[in-house]
Amino acid sequence: MNTQLTAVDPPQLPRSPAFAQGMIAAAGPTLYIGGQNGTDGAGTLLDGLGPQTEQAMRNLLAVLAEAGAGPENVAKLTIYLATGVDPGDAFAATRSVWGNHRTAVTVLSVTPARPGALVEIDAIAVLPETS
Amino acid sequence: MNTQLTAVDPPQLPRSPAFAQGMIAAAGPTLYIGGQNGTDGAGTLLDGLGPQTEQAMRNLLAVLAEAGAGPENVAKLTIYLATGVDPGDAFAATRSVWGNHRTAVTVLSVTPARPGALVEIDAIAVLPETS
Amino acid sequence: MNTQLTAVDPPQLPRSPAFAQGMIAAAGPTLYIGGQNGTDGAGTLLDGLGPQTEQAMRNLLAVLAEAGAGPENVAKLTIYLATGVDPGDAFAATRSVWGNHRTAVTVLSVTPARPGALVEIDAIAVLPETS
Repeated sequence: MNTQLTAVDPPQLPRSPAFAQGMIAAAGPTLYIGGQNGTDGAGTLLDGLGPQTEQAMRNLLAVLAEAGAGPENVAKLTIYLATGVDPGDAFAATRSVWGNHRTAVTVLSVTPARPGALVEIDAIAVLPETS
Repeated sequence: MNTQLTAVDPPQLPRSPAFAQGMIAAAGPTLYIGGQNGTDGAGTLLDGLGPQTEQAMRNLLAVLAEAGAGPENVAKLTIYLATGVDPGDAFAATRSVWGNHRTAVTVLSVTPARPGALVEIDAIAVLPETS
Repeated sequence: MNTQLTAVDPPQLPRSPAFAQGMIAAAGPTLYIGGQNGTDGAGTLLDGLGPQTEQAMRNLLAVLAEAGAGPENVAKLTIYLATGVDPGDAFAATRSVWGNHRTAVTVLSVTPARPGALVEIDAIAVLPETS
């Protein structure tokens, strides 16, 4: 539980277990994470949607951890999928690393700039004032 | 009028009645709204660009209202249009729901992840400290 | 040097001289800059990737300057390239205007909404409390 973030789910919109329609972040330091692909620490792109998505999420978690934070601090995820990728398959792969932290999400089909990348994910997180 | 937000329009750039080149948001709670499509409360996607865009804007307004805010609190809109959609047509539809609140805007042609969706819109808003 | 921003580069990820994996922005006023194309003050789109990218960066700098800020205040850049544009060519052009300020970056291939635009760039910056 993170008192920095409050989910906003108006009764007029469908309520999802996986994401919130909006997230209110209390005033405080904000962490902007650049787009992460499914590349490992050596910069090698993994093979296939599942491994790439899981690695991209692990990279996000590494940046969060370095800032003293975790998925419970994330206010917004933007998930960019290569054209033709099934969003359901990508979501399942994010969940296996990320768990069920609800946050505001935008999902789009675009082309990540890195050749061969099937997924790119960036994030905005709010940090406790003491970090 | 919202004292939390200040439009930034440098003299070197064209000035638009519809959007600001930049918006300064005072420090305070921030509302991140996930990508909204033209789906109604039952999750049904409406038919056609005008109805979808108007519904997406109504969904944004519902999230804002649930957080005690409105269009005057929005600092940034990102409007994702399906390839082939005329941005002018989409703008006209946003305006009919949104009015003429100037804010920073990015408009792109991508493919929203939901099949059949012609438009997806997300937003960042700043809330009064008391909310 | 800007004490409002702190780069986050976890040891598990490759370290780049050009961008940070994440940026922590101290609590303070936030400037959201809408998507900038390679259009000059008269609204005319320049010809070619290099001139468009350099102009888009000059437009960003103009908005930053109007808010009393500069590239050292930028926490996040999102660079949208038209399909087929080489990201390396675009980066080189941004660097010639922007210098080597490290920030969190997402780069994608999409279609800017403006016909003929090869690049669109938006940004989030954090301002000193006194501005």
